[in-house]
Amino acid sequence: MPDMVELIRAKREGRRLADGEIRWLIDAYTGGAVADEQMSALLMAICFRGLDPAELRAWTAAMIESGERLDLSAVPAPTVDKHSTGGVGDKVSLVLAPLVASCGAAVPQLSGRGLGHTGGTLDKLESIPGWRAELTNAEMISVLSSAGCVICAAGQGLAPADRKLYALRDVTGTVESIPLIASSIMSKKIAEGTAALVLDVKVGSGAFMPDIDQARLLAQTMVTLGEEHGVRTTALLTRMDTPLGRAVGNAVEVEEAVATLAGAGPPDLAEVTLALAAEMLALAGLPTGLPAGPADAAPGPAGPAAALADAAPGPAGPAAALADGRALDRYRAMIRAQHGDPDAPLPQAAHTDVVAAPEAGWLRRLDARAVGVAAWRLGAGRARKEDLVSPAAGVICLAKPGDRVERGQPLLELRGDAGSRCTAAREALAGAFEIGPRAPDIGPLILERIPAAADGSRQLPG
Amino acid sequence: MPDMVELIRAKREGRRLADGEIRWLIDAYTGGAVADEQMSALLMAICFRGLDPAELRAWTAAMIESGERLDLSAVPAPTVDKHSTGGVGDKVSLVLAPLVASCGAAVPQLSGRGLGHTGGTLDKLESIPGWRAELTNAEMISVLSSAGCVICAAGQGLAPADRKLYALRDVTGTVESIPLIASSIMSKKIAEGTAALVLDVKVGSGAFMPDIDQARLLAQTMVTLGEEHGVRTTALLTRMDTPLGRAVGNAVEVEEAVATLAGAGPPDLAEVTLALAAEMLALAGLPTGLPAGPADAAPGPAGPAAALADAAPGPAGPAAALADGRALDRYRAMIRAQHGDPDAPLPQAAHTDVVAAPEAGWLRRLDARAVGVAAWRLGAGRARKEDLVSPAAGVICLAKPGDRVERGQPLLELRGDAGSRCTAAREALAGAFEIGPRAPDIGPLILERIPAAADGSRQLPG
Repeated sequence: MPDMVELIRAKREGRRLADGEIRWLIDAYTGGAVADEQMSALLMAICFRGLDPAELRAWTAAMIESGERLDLSAVPAPTVDKHSTGGVGDKVSLVLAPLVASCGAAVPQLSGRGLGHTGGTLDKLESIPGWRAELTNAEMISVLSSAGCVICAAGQGLAPADRKLYALRDVTGTVESIPLIASSIMSKKIAEGTAALVLDVKVGSGAFMPDIDQARLLAQTMVTLGEEHGVRTTALLTRMDTPLGRAVGNAVEVEEAVATLAGAGPPDLAEVTLALAAEMLALAGLPTGLPAGPADAAPGPAGPAAALADAAPGPAGPAAALADGRALDRYRAMIRAQHGDPDAPLPQAAHTDVVAAPEAGWLRRLDARAVGVAAWRLGAGRARKEDLVSPAAGVICLAKPGDRVERGQPLLELRGDAGSRCTAAREALAGAFEIGPRAPDIGPLILERIPAAADGSRQLPG
Repeated sequence: MPDMVELIRAKREGRRLADGEIRWLIDAYTGGAVADEQMSALLMAICFRGLDPAELRAWTAAMIESGERLDLSAVPAPTVDKHSTGGVGDKVSLVLAPLVASCGAAVPQLSGRGLGHTGGTLDKLESIPGWRAELTNAEMISVLSSAGCVICAAGQGLAPADRKLYALRDVTGTVESIPLIASSIMSKKIAEGTAALVLDVKVGSGAFMPDIDQARLLAQTMVTLGEEHGVRTTALLTRMDTPLGRAVGNAVEVEEAVATLAGAGPPDLAEVTLALAAEMLALAGLPTGLPAGPADAAPGPAGPAAALADAAPGPAGPAAALADGRALDRYRAMIRAQHGDPDAPLPQAAHTDVVAAPEAGWLRRLDARAVGVAAWRLGAGRARKEDLVSPAAGVICLAKPGDRVERGQPLLELRGDAGSRCTAAREALAGAFEIGPRAPDIGPLILERIPAAADGSRQLPG
């Protein structure tokens, strides 16, 4: 039996850990034989020394094997999921899962709750009266098979090692490590049983990864881990300097997602959602509705997507599914299957307040992180896992970078359950925006595409 | 109130911690408000990032202030202590404390127990029937005042933060960090109340620091910490490639110490002991018995040691105190004051075994660490804090590097309570010695002197 102190020292001194040592330590930690104070010392050593590809593969495999791996073979459609590293106003999942389902794939989206300035998908959906995040595995598979998509809490049986490690990293300052982030995300997604996965790695002030080089490395690391475990995986790097869409919160994001499903959403949200949908459909071997291009190439030249080469956006594509209401129908079916009432009125905040433009000009910048923190202070997010969130709280961005604004024009609407929260939120917004005499250069929203490992020649179109 | 996770992240990212943050985290950890898993993550970050001089000063001060600082002002002689970083066969304290006491200083030696391949001074003395390591503060000061020296366990009230941190470092692979080692040693010694301190920093295979550059840095770091807290401190770097003296164990080391106090000890042990004694006496402002030299310079030109400039070794010096029995008298008084019987027979081992020279030649090398591990396996040391040690177990080095040996001549005598332990010890000694056709070069035992901070011009004589 390996000696944990020796393994910690080995990593501290830059020696590599063997597969069996990694398997032992993950099992021993999950089972309680390795103490939290030993694991946190090892995690900090990993923050400095990293894990090499073989160590990371073994670490991730051990985390997957610490629990069950779901079997989705009974689902009557190709399974494909999406994971976002988290952004402000990122309600993409709420639109994307039913949209991709309406195009013929099955989307098993097992999600977490929000912590800090980025919201959680489950918190958002829980603002819908009656909706339930907690499903048994059988219920999950049943909703997935009937509605074509499901968004629910990951069960306790999936990657229990990650559950314990994630809680430990959160209190020991060991979150920001690419191999630890990659193994945490991928162990859960691989255990979930999806056949394919698209990663939305956010870059910018409102994202976990402010730096594109780090974001690219994280994306490549996760794509490789997916392939190693038989999950076909690609990634998009997308910009997160300003909130996605206009609504940041819980009920307000559900409202915006429903509008987008009805074809009337903000253009940035629609753009990211359609790009991810095309990636997912391509990985699932289904028509993407796009002209033949990178995301459209199927696994082989004989695949169904290749047959659509040069086709104009057609009725089978996701843009059409948004326009003709099929995606919205899927959304409503999914909400109902999880005991929610898609027609019930959503909670409304007791207090609202407005931040107005102090001068006329072009809105050049609206900082995602500051808006996220403001929404958090309004009650939309939680500081600790056990905190409750306010369903009605949030921020509405009445102007977005690139808009022309007049002096006194409302820029942001704050919604909260108490006036004191609005005051705290206003403080978070000091310096959050910039108005200038010239229109800003708005760069592309989709920065880069990281292809599947066997797919190295593809590049994002210019 | 600082946030521990933010402090861990700051250190991880290489930012410095403020004095108040360090004071808070040491207090909060000692009091239980900071969890072990948070502290171990911080300790590992310190292993990589270090502590700068100001951080280290604040860290050490907070450890001292976590408990009481003894007041030795009632002791009727200048107080001076010695600390060794630990070596194999290092029974220097048993000789040095009574020797320096017999020359007019008071030596308050608060010690620990051994862990691993180096023995603990308390474990050695506990082989004397009746001798007690645990004294109250009042008893400690009483023995110190009457006998001139005391060797006892550090009370629970001294630097409790260090007690907790040391136990944590031991199980989390965070022992080997110079600032953490330095603050651990110095916080206890400063809290002990001694006015002056000499450090014996061991270098070589049997020492904690195999590398002289690291040992020098550790010594300089501790000397600076002593001065910063008003404890006049110097250090010697001494060689620890082969056991010091011939005996390695508990009762066997007491026997050798007594022989040395009677003027009949092995020359290497006497050399190191006399060099440390001269350092201690010089710091205490007492005659060193040496010709005027580096260790003899008193704090000022008017000091008592300066008055002895150019004096030949005289009756007041430590060599004379060994020769005429005064040091041995002090030892016997100290043992009796701590309820021990200096005339009682010491425990004898039930089994002995011998390792013989496989060929004739010069003994070129006898590895300290291997001999230490052999003695440990024979029962002289402990693997865990709660283990008991065997008082009779140990190794006698019948030959030392530089000796001429014949084929079949006994090199090492193994003593243990069971024959099986002798077998395990023999295995530890495979490759521990080397016999060759030429006599080895035996380098100096005392490698370097690190003067007090205000004392920068002094060098060890060539």
